[in-house]
Amino acid sequence: MTLYFEDLKPGRVFKAGPIAVEPAAVRDFAQQYDPQAFHLDEAAGIASVFGSQVASGWQTAAYTMRMMADSELARIANGLVGLQVDKLMWHQPVKPGDVLTAEFDVMGRKHSRSKPDFGVVQLAWRTFNQQGDLVMSLECAIWVAVRGQ
Amino acid sequence: MTLYFEDLKPGRVFKAGPIAVEPAAVRDFAQQYDPQAFHLDEAAGIASVFGSQVASGWQTAAYTMRMMADSELARIANGLVGLQVDKLMWHQPVKPGDVLTAEFDVMGRKHSRSKPDFGVVQLAWRTFNQQGDLVMSLECAIWVAVRGQ
Repeated sequence: MTLYFEDLKPGRVFKAGPIAVEPAAVRDFAQQYDPQAFHLDEAAGIASVFGSQVASGWQTAAYTMRMMADSELARIANGLVGLQVDKLMWHQPVKPGDVLTAEFDVMGRKHSRSKPDFGVVQLAWRTFNQQGDLVMSLECAIWVAVRGQ
Repeated sequence: MTLYFEDLKPGRVFKAGPIAVEPAAVRDFAQQYDPQAFHLDEAAGIASVFGSQVASGWQTAAYTMRMMADSELARIANGLVGLQVDKLMWHQPVKPGDVLTAEFDVMGRKHSRSKPDFGVVQLAWRTFNQQGDLVMSLECAIWVAVRGQ
């Protein structure tokens, strides 16, 4: 069922995942977007402040986006269109071989003043590893079409 | 020259890029991390709210990270370690074929209370396309080693 502004009531929670953090994908993302030694290489990661090879924080965000795009939230009528992200924090390193899950909570919403057919919905994203540790969180405003009459 | 906390004075600006947004990279990122039709496919993009195929907003962040990792800021002694991101906004769509540049401004800094050998530096990131349009901005706190004596 297609989701509209009216369906995204504050308090509603969407669960997503799991997704596996493949070692080859960690290396590929690092080579293309974040070529720091502690992302690229196992030995360099062990020697770093992290004590282990770790995924780029931006890759953790990208994996969480993928889980959202595969979740019920992908049924939003106009797609997943982000307006602003705040309080993006990386709480724990994500390591090759981890398995991630995510939760998206509807925090609030308001109708658009300029475009009455749309509204802005505030979501809290939380990403967890296979031990249940919170690895990333953020707050995101998305643009959602109104069902109307 | 290696950069330490003392070198990142408020007002200092680091310029980075350019980097080309290759059409194949837009499709690859979308397939792996954000498989929405307006990211995957030219025709679907033209039919969407964007009126064009557009890169995932998370890919624009990743490209900006890459420009930072290739800039003078990569000389920070302990690497580029982000703590928190706020006010991340996507101002204009990024399209296949665009060429991006970035600026990173030192906004402020403070010594760590718990770890006297480190400090937190606030950076403003701004990403531009080849027309000079601002496409993305954010504020980021990073963790930087103190040179000391």
